[in-house]
Amino acid sequence: MEFSAKQISLLLNGEIIGNEDVRVNTLCKIEDGKEGGLSFLANDKYEHFIYDCNSSIVIVNKSFSPNKALKPTIIKVDNAYESFAKLLDIYNDYFLNKTGVASLSFISKTAKVDEDIYVGEFAFIGEGVKIGKHVKVYPNCYIGDNVIIGDNVTLFAGVRIYHNCIIGNNCILHSGVVIGTDGFGFAPLEDGSFKKIAQIGNVILEDDVEVGANSTIDRSTMGSTIIEKGVKIDNLVQIAHNVVVGKNTAIASQTGVAGSSKIGHNCFIGGQVGIAGHLTIGNRVKIGGQAGILSNIKDDSTIMGTPALNAKDFMRSYSIFRKLPQMQKQIDELTKKLESLSPPSGI
Amino acid sequence: MEFSAKQISLLLNGEIIGNEDVRVNTLCKIEDGKEGGLSFLANDKYEHFIYDCNSSIVIVNKSFSPNKALKPTIIKVDNAYESFAKLLDIYNDYFLNKTGVASLSFISKTAKVDEDIYVGEFAFIGEGVKIGKHVKVYPNCYIGDNVIIGDNVTLFAGVRIYHNCIIGNNCILHSGVVIGTDGFGFAPLEDGSFKKIAQIGNVILEDDVEVGANSTIDRSTMGSTIIEKGVKIDNLVQIAHNVVVGKNTAIASQTGVAGSSKIGHNCFIGGQVGIAGHLTIGNRVKIGGQAGILSNIKDDSTIMGTPALNAKDFMRSYSIFRKLPQMQKQIDELTKKLESLSPPSGI
Amino acid sequence: MEFSAKQISLLLNGEIIGNEDVRVNTLCKIEDGKEGGLSFLANDKYEHFIYDCNSSIVIVNKSFSPNKALKPTIIKVDNAYESFAKLLDIYNDYFLNKTGVASLSFISKTAKVDEDIYVGEFAFIGEGVKIGKHVKVYPNCYIGDNVIIGDNVTLFAGVRIYHNCIIGNNCILHSGVVIGTDGFGFAPLEDGSFKKIAQIGNVILEDDVEVGANSTIDRSTMGSTIIEKGVKIDNLVQIAHNVVVGKNTAIASQTGVAGSSKIGHNCFIGGQVGIAGHLTIGNRVKIGGQAGILSNIKDDSTIMGTPALNAKDFMRSYSIFRKLPQMQKQIDELTKKLESLSPPSGI
Repeated sequence: MEFSAKQISLLLNGEIIGNEDVRVNTLCKIEDGKEGGLSFLANDKYEHFIYDCNSSIVIVNKSFSPNKALKPTIIKVDNAYESFAKLLDIYNDYFLNKTGVASLSFISKTAKVDEDIYVGEFAFIGEGVKIGKHVKVYPNCYIGDNVIIGDNVTLFAGVRIYHNCIIGNNCILHSGVVIGTDGFGFAPLEDGSFKKIAQIGNVILEDDVEVGANSTIDRSTMGSTIIEKGVKIDNLVQIAHNVVVGKNTAIASQTGVAGSSKIGHNCFIGGQVGIAGHLTIGNRVKIGGQAGILSNIKDDSTIMGTPALNAKDFMRSYSIFRKLPQMQKQIDELTKKLESLSPPSGI
Repeated sequence: MEFSAKQISLLLNGEIIGNEDVRVNTLCKIEDGKEGGLSFLANDKYEHFIYDCNSSIVIVNKSFSPNKALKPTIIKVDNAYESFAKLLDIYNDYFLNKTGVASLSFISKTAKVDEDIYVGEFAFIGEGVKIGKHVKVYPNCYIGDNVIIGDNVTLFAGVRIYHNCIIGNNCILHSGVVIGTDGFGFAPLEDGSFKKIAQIGNVILEDDVEVGANSTIDRSTMGSTIIEKGVKIDNLVQIAHNVVVGKNTAIASQTGVAGSSKIGHNCFIGGQVGIAGHLTIGNRVKIGGQAGILSNIKDDSTIMGTPALNAKDFMRSYSIFRKLPQMQKQIDELTKKLESLSPPSGI
Repeated sequence: MEFSAKQISLLLNGEIIGNEDVRVNTLCKIEDGKEGGLSFLANDKYEHFIYDCNSSIVIVNKSFSPNKALKPTIIKVDNAYESFAKLLDIYNDYFLNKTGVASLSFISKTAKVDEDIYVGEFAFIGEGVKIGKHVKVYPNCYIGDNVIIGDNVTLFAGVRIYHNCIIGNNCILHSGVVIGTDGFGFAPLEDGSFKKIAQIGNVILEDDVEVGANSTIDRSTMGSTIIEKGVKIDNLVQIAHNVVVGKNTAIASQTGVAGSSKIGHNCFIGGQVGIAGHLTIGNRVKIGGQAGILSNIKDDSTIMGTPALNAKDFMRSYSIFRKLPQMQKQIDELTKKLESLSPPSGI
């Protein structure tokens, strides 16, 4: 994959300053520029990097005017950041442009899959599965019976989707994701052992959901565990049965949400957060990393700590926690002083 | 899968009130009832739902007598909850009723597997493996050399069991579970690098153990990491080498147990708990979510916090932690007041 | 696999006391000795075990002289621990001595793989992949396009490596490891939804890196996420995009490192630690389990808590946290006493 400055300039509707025939084959940061590399400069703060930059081409804003000589060819565009992001997307699509159905894959006869999908080697597609257009099923994926998958979905290598689950359009599931595993539901018996409660619901991912590597989302006991439109979930996250995660909420790595909790829309949830079961978290809530949530949280709250408090209150208390030894000393001195002031006993 | 009220009534030994020919094809909560649905009412608290319920059939306790007209057909049974749980099991078994050995699977010639097992596509069964009756090995599973698996075991898609491990009867392992990976054992060398210590032991799961998706259980250095009978482990849990987890203990998601610790029987361990290495946790211990355990714990303790304290003590201290700024103010006022009381120096 | 005392003695250059023809087929701890077992005694503290030991052979230091009769055959060597570790390695290699390319695997025509590698059933090797000598690719592995793998690498069953990543020599990746998944990068849009930022970088594991089961390492946005030589990573660990982990650092289970943070060399990081993004952690830093790191950390620090403090300071404060109720009582008594000392108002 190699492009000339001329080709890129045409694509971005830009203006070339320098050699229009110079060719690039990779994208790199302006501070890591090398021959054959294409970089961008969008922020004045990084301008000094361009004067020593070895990249063959640098994309800049129209407003940029160099105050020294430059090695790279320059392409001036309306918005350097957006133009570069566009190139990132094109570059990425090139590597992810898989097509065709591998002869070593397995598709059940009762599955209905669009003609143009990619199915990689050793992927399994079960009975009654429906798969939409432009879907990519990488090698070693498992799609259980009656799963429904929308259009433009990518399942990277080794994704597992249990029977009856539903995946919306434009979803991306990374390697090792497990959708629809049994919820952790057991009835304790008198002898201390457990009876498993069958989990017969499913999981629904609405459109535009992304789920990071090795994350797990449990099927509902009955009904559905629901991940609403636009939710972004990082790696190694656990979503338990019957949970609902509201629209456009982002959940960072290693966070866990226990059974039946409902999370509002547009929340930002940090890494390693634990949310107990049967809670309601409001909309636009921000939760600091490692917080432990044991009660309902109101809209627009910002919280941290275990059990979680308003973030400012937590930090105020924690700053005194750090000085508790001094506080103890202060109290001991007060006690001593007060004793010396008190009249001797017996008087 | 469709059943009439008559068929279900016969199965549950119940009494029909209403149309015995009405048919259902799904199970649903009484508050989410819809045509073709079967629901149950076991708790008086939810009785009001039944009067607006659109389910075609509702299973109720014998004692139930409606105070208004009802749309659904009613089936009266001795115990509505247990009858419904029975139907849940039947419904679930229907979807998990896989049989046969896929031609695209691999079974070593030296493996001894019962005739009636299910082996899905792209599953691998190594040399010398022994597998009992009614075992289901879903697609993409890996069973290493000399692994022994009992009867009635289910390995969902993509389970990995390393060589020499032993899985008891009636165990359920969910997708992405890894059993028998090397313990994290390294000898630090003088130059700061590490020499790997070979981990030649194995993992033993006793009967009736369930392990959630993407959880990992390390093989012992020598001897065995042991998960005793009836233990239930949630998703994304880590059990390190040489650990023993006692009978009927339940471990919630994302908890980690470090090397060589022994956990008693009938414990309840919350989510995201960390248990340090070489500890002994007693029997019937309850550990709150996110607790960090750094010392041995006595039988029947209930603990939380990091480092963990008795739960009530932790909450008492934490309630004062929340008010530390006020406490600091109170102390400062005391200091001031005391200074005003003290005789001026020099007298 | 069975060996006589004579064979083992020759291998270890030892001296036999007892029956040189006795045979062993397993390794076991001296306290768990059984017929056919081989144990070792390196530490005087455990000497009492040898007198009741049922192992057929025990390896001891030259200096050991028994004060009672012994059942096992004894092999005296210069260093019993090192000799036994050597046997552990041999024993382990025996089980991991896989060879050949399975007919049910898939290797792209454009891949360049050394002749002597092992490729297990249902393993996938993509376009342009390069694989060195003595590499083992267990069943169900996925190696994306253009991945480069050095010599003596082991990928256990179900490892996933995304396109363009680089794995150094002598690396060991356990089951379920995901290398090179997309970093969690999204630009928030005005309507509260997110635009995915293409992640076009890669992951580089340098030589001698081990990664535990189901751990995930994200590819860089541009450039590389780098795990330096000799780093050891436990199970279920998350390394985000653009992170650098320095030489010979060890990271325990379930720890997460957020985007763009740089960790120094020779650090010890406990389990369930969270490290926020864009931080610099010094060299030889020790981080206690469950700590939350929100700021840069200097070389040679030992820290714990969330937010993390110097470990000694944290423990000092925490020991007072435990006694906060008493402290509150002490302050209330002081207040009362002071009031009784103050002159009555109005005088």
